[in-house]
Amino acid sequence: MSIAAFRLGASLGALMAATTLLSLPASAAKADEGMWTFDNFPIQTVNDKYGTRIDQAWLDRVRGGAVRIQGCSASFVSPEGLILTNHHCVVSCVQELSSAENDYVKNGWMPATREEEKQCPGQTAEVLTDIVDVTDRVLAAGQGLEGGAFIQARGAETQRIQQENCGDDAELTCQVISFYRGGRYALYKFRKYDDVRLVFAPEFQAAFFGGDPDNFNFPRYALDGAFLRAYEDGRPAATPNHLKWNATAPREGDVTFVAGNPGTTQRLLTVAQLERLRDQQLPLQLIQGSELRGRLLAYSATGDEAKRVSVDPIFGLENSFKVWYGQQQALLDPTFFGRKQQEEAELRQRVAADPALQQRIGDPWTELETVEAAARDLAVPYRQLVTAAGGGSTLYGMANAIVGMARERAKPTDQRGPGFNDAAVARVRARLQEETPISADLEEIRLGFWLSKTREYLTVDNAGVQTLLGRESPEALAERVVDGTRLDEPAYRVAALDMTVEQLAALNDPMIDLAMRNADQMAALQAEWGAKVAVPTARAAERVAQARFAVYGDNLYPDATFSLRLSYGQVKGWTYRGVTVPPTTVMGGLYERATGSEPFNAAEKFLEAENRIDKNVVYDFVSTNDIIGGNSGSPVINAAGEVIGAAFDGNIHSLGGSFGYDGELNRTVSVSTAAITEALRNVYDQPRLLEELGVGR
Amino acid sequence: MSIAAFRLGASLGALMAATTLLSLPASAAKADEGMWTFDNFPIQTVNDKYGTRIDQAWLDRVRGGAVRIQGCSASFVSPEGLILTNHHCVVSCVQELSSAENDYVKNGWMPATREEEKQCPGQTAEVLTDIVDVTDRVLAAGQGLEGGAFIQARGAETQRIQQENCGDDAELTCQVISFYRGGRYALYKFRKYDDVRLVFAPEFQAAFFGGDPDNFNFPRYALDGAFLRAYEDGRPAATPNHLKWNATAPREGDVTFVAGNPGTTQRLLTVAQLERLRDQQLPLQLIQGSELRGRLLAYSATGDEAKRVSVDPIFGLENSFKVWYGQQQALLDPTFFGRKQQEEAELRQRVAADPALQQRIGDPWTELETVEAAARDLAVPYRQLVTAAGGGSTLYGMANAIVGMARERAKPTDQRGPGFNDAAVARVRARLQEETPISADLEEIRLGFWLSKTREYLTVDNAGVQTLLGRESPEALAERVVDGTRLDEPAYRVAALDMTVEQLAALNDPMIDLAMRNADQMAALQAEWGAKVAVPTARAAERVAQARFAVYGDNLYPDATFSLRLSYGQVKGWTYRGVTVPPTTVMGGLYERATGSEPFNAAEKFLEAENRIDKNVVYDFVSTNDIIGGNSGSPVINAAGEVIGAAFDGNIHSLGGSFGYDGELNRTVSVSTAAITEALRNVYDQPRLLEELGVGR
Repeated sequence: MSIAAFRLGASLGALMAATTLLSLPASAAKADEGMWTFDNFPIQTVNDKYGTRIDQAWLDRVRGGAVRIQGCSASFVSPEGLILTNHHCVVSCVQELSSAENDYVKNGWMPATREEEKQCPGQTAEVLTDIVDVTDRVLAAGQGLEGGAFIQARGAETQRIQQENCGDDAELTCQVISFYRGGRYALYKFRKYDDVRLVFAPEFQAAFFGGDPDNFNFPRYALDGAFLRAYEDGRPAATPNHLKWNATAPREGDVTFVAGNPGTTQRLLTVAQLERLRDQQLPLQLIQGSELRGRLLAYSATGDEAKRVSVDPIFGLENSFKVWYGQQQALLDPTFFGRKQQEEAELRQRVAADPALQQRIGDPWTELETVEAAARDLAVPYRQLVTAAGGGSTLYGMANAIVGMARERAKPTDQRGPGFNDAAVARVRARLQEETPISADLEEIRLGFWLSKTREYLTVDNAGVQTLLGRESPEALAERVVDGTRLDEPAYRVAALDMTVEQLAALNDPMIDLAMRNADQMAALQAEWGAKVAVPTARAAERVAQARFAVYGDNLYPDATFSLRLSYGQVKGWTYRGVTVPPTTVMGGLYERATGSEPFNAAEKFLEAENRIDKNVVYDFVSTNDIIGGNSGSPVINAAGEVIGAAFDGNIHSLGGSFGYDGELNRTVSVSTAAITEALRNVYDQPRLLEELGVGR
Repeated sequence: MSIAAFRLGASLGALMAATTLLSLPASAAKADEGMWTFDNFPIQTVNDKYGTRIDQAWLDRVRGGAVRIQGCSASFVSPEGLILTNHHCVVSCVQELSSAENDYVKNGWMPATREEEKQCPGQTAEVLTDIVDVTDRVLAAGQGLEGGAFIQARGAETQRIQQENCGDDAELTCQVISFYRGGRYALYKFRKYDDVRLVFAPEFQAAFFGGDPDNFNFPRYALDGAFLRAYEDGRPAATPNHLKWNATAPREGDVTFVAGNPGTTQRLLTVAQLERLRDQQLPLQLIQGSELRGRLLAYSATGDEAKRVSVDPIFGLENSFKVWYGQQQALLDPTFFGRKQQEEAELRQRVAADPALQQRIGDPWTELETVEAAARDLAVPYRQLVTAAGGGSTLYGMANAIVGMARERAKPTDQRGPGFNDAAVARVRARLQEETPISADLEEIRLGFWLSKTREYLTVDNAGVQTLLGRESPEALAERVVDGTRLDEPAYRVAALDMTVEQLAALNDPMIDLAMRNADQMAALQAEWGAKVAVPTARAAERVAQARFAVYGDNLYPDATFSLRLSYGQVKGWTYRGVTVPPTTVMGGLYERATGSEPFNAAEKFLEAENRIDKNVVYDFVSTNDIIGGNSGSPVINAAGEVIGAAFDGNIHSLGGSFGYDGELNRTVSVSTAAITEALRNVYDQPRLLEELGVGR
């Protein structure tokens, strides 16, 4: 959930003119549209269209090889726990393993032996094993309740279902997931690995050749692949259900499946919800994101170490920026938005035409208009003081978690938040125990930026701002709390996790004090947001979903929720404004595009290998699969269920995919297993991995 | 014109909820609305409402004391050329006179004698002396022509009118100005002073107390006043038509007039034009402006000298950012925008109901829809390669002017641009001759930012981008051309101004080369923009204006065009969401608001003077006058025609004033002459100025 790391960049100029994005047809899904759950995949449709022989057994095999990691997707590709994903999904880990002396982001991570594979702090890998419908239990739990009581009851029931099915087994994850915006609820049960080690990562410059300018564009020449390995009991995990590695490059027209975890789509939002997104939320994110981007870019130019520690934050922010920008452009397109309005009008009309249905559904669309008006008033303080509090500072995040836990513990048991239990405390403890390098400079930048924007948007005279700042300036306060806190010491922060609110106060730790100062107003805003926005939205959205089921039947796919989905499609280029983009690039193209200037400088090892590698090997390719951020690292699978690539991006037109899929233009961008194999053999000389993948040395 | 320096900041949070902004009533102007020309002031309306005795003689006296300076407004306040304006209107000059050793921005500029007053490079002061209607001549010139020929013919006629009336007299400025978006044209004739010296400027921290967070807010405690002096023949100019300085503070309900040069309003734009502004232009400006803001803020934090040279650029950018943000919020407000739509529908209906009128006007609204669709496609390349080319780099701007002049000279006389003539060359030469300090760091930041955003928005594969960058990265190219150019030497650049294109190429000056590389694509885009956007817009807008005159009569005020206007109103607070804001602050309030942290640290001299000054003197005040950016420094005038303050800001609600005036909420913020007098006496000890102002020592 939270951050889906999948890169969704865009060539902004071209996009601004893109007016042909189609929205989700409210009736049956057409073209290669849909992020389908594994229990509702349109088997017949696909077999009919592509002549494949998919069946439930095929789906089960694929599901067994698909892996969910933090913010990304992946797959087992050997019987010994080897995991294929994107480089950009592991770059945080690479950065954490790096230091000023050993910069593996720059030079790549490629140990010669399995013994040198190093654990990625906090990294887990999860394989979906069971899906159980729990809609009735969840809906029943909230019935007749409002506000806090509703949230409490739903949350408690969800916890109960999860606890009943997974107990305290550290090797299992149980997660109740909402589908169709509350139209269905299902328990997803996973086998979980929490010792995941970094096996291989190419140089950043090989993985991200073309950088931000090429992000979201195609043709591409990026080796955005990396390997992890799941361990159990200190040994490589046995993973007999892995996907077979097929190093034959795909060809135009080949059928492709993508199994992964699309993070979030908003195709089922009502017009009122989309309007606030377009007019308030996205503009604010874009404006604030841009300023932070400028601050980070200027900071990264101040020296080598500044540049090194900024790589990952800048990468992540620029990627998010493009996603938001693309979403905004899609929503600002009058044709596109008009179609969303038209679809909603049609659904409302069909409900109105059926008195019994009308009686059951009511008018959730009008309800959501009222909710969005309330959200508009609350959104800025809610964002600045709650959801964006700390501005991404790691230390503030820790302080906030510690303070939050202490405050929950201090409450009577029945008033505690639904997320507060032993398992949650254990997760926080595990995170606090990790030794993660923290850049004080970046902490100050993030915290100072957050405080300064909070003052700007809420004004100097706002009580919340005064509570945070006192008589200090944002910058001075940020510097003082970052300099003064001891939260950069794991032992200290773990000890703090067990303290009462009073004990925390007695520490006189300035970062903890800052989080404490914000805690009351945060709680008040959360309660208000819950009562005025979150709960009424949940209640109304459920009925919108029920209206869809009633009108269009069950043959629908739900919005993305960072849960396992399967999309189908084929290797295929596209034509836009008379320009046809072929579906594949070859490795030799890298040398033609390379200018020698960042970010168009080829990686050193690629330059050295120019005479060794086969320039005709397919490098990257596009397909019509319907994916979105979170799908990064997803295995691209052929009709035989073998992995032939790893999805790592979308083309520019895919950015509107958050709100609707256009089969003509929307494309998934993947790196081929053929290219990865060629690079392992002739660029990086990795015989042990080649052997493990079953493709010789 | 160009940059109106007037600060229009806003408390963004409050503004986001502001939904009550009224748009311009298409019929007669109500409330205290209107930026009236001096030849069409609603004398009777004002006298009736406020019991004043304004007549044409009164108007002529005020006009004679009003002064236009670069991007701002001002007034003569002594018979010896003394000019009152805002500190923020002279801060660039203060910065130019400063050095790392003598930072007058920080410490203030307050020479003890007249002999020490120093010239502000490039600063002029203009007093309007005549207004002549030239509508018929201008309209006749373009009749029957299209595209380039239209622009050429109109431009040539404009030049002719100006030349006929001012000749080559260096003491005169003649400017043909468009009013009502082409509904009227008038020749404005000015007495021009081009030796303008800095007399007095307080410390930045006194003038801009509260900084960006307080910008656009009220209550305020800012001494945003400064003095210049016009010289002729090396001696203070004789200015018998000055306004009398009245140091008595205004009181609630007092009538106030503001005479100044509002820069730009867009109240007469059609809905199609406003839509593109809202959906394309403002989002792009906000997003790019934010990133540059982040880069500049981060740069300014790298050291004392970086901070010093960044003060003015950051100030200007943050101010513009708030204006754009406020404009966007106004246009995103459905109530506000709905009213604009309703007004347009009403006007179109009235035209349609009158066959003769319909015949004469046609359908310029639909024409403008088509124009805006074309503009949408062209706007991003046009912005990146033409209007925003160079990103504000001073050196690139010089290179571009030099190259542009050489290219014009190379053309046959009848194909030269209408702006190319001896006077224009002389103006450029004068500018190039000035010794202005140039920060290489800021030049690199601006240029690198422009190149990088141009690549981002037009994509790597765009021919224009490739022409600019070649194989270099934006940052490396920016560094190379800034390091390598000699355009920082006045003699070198003045010499370059007389060179042919070939001679310029032979210089091998990297900055000139960069401007040369961009010249062809710039010219092509300018021609395309002219043909598809500028000319058809001009033609259609004229007919919209004629429709307004036909339907509503002549009793209308035109959109702002940085030409002299008069607004009327009264000293008055406002009430918003139950909170009433009183109309005045007193000087003692500064000490209560000061926290000691930037930007809420009071200036040193104010702290020292705390026991001397009269804390009850009115500091800043608000009035209902209808003004906008460009009005900064405008004299606030009482019924007797005496100056009682200088306008320096608007309140948050005034931001929507670009599109419409709301008498309930829209307020002008001014610093009182009472406060300036008190500060000159008890904070800055300036007896020579007090005497000159006629208020003792």
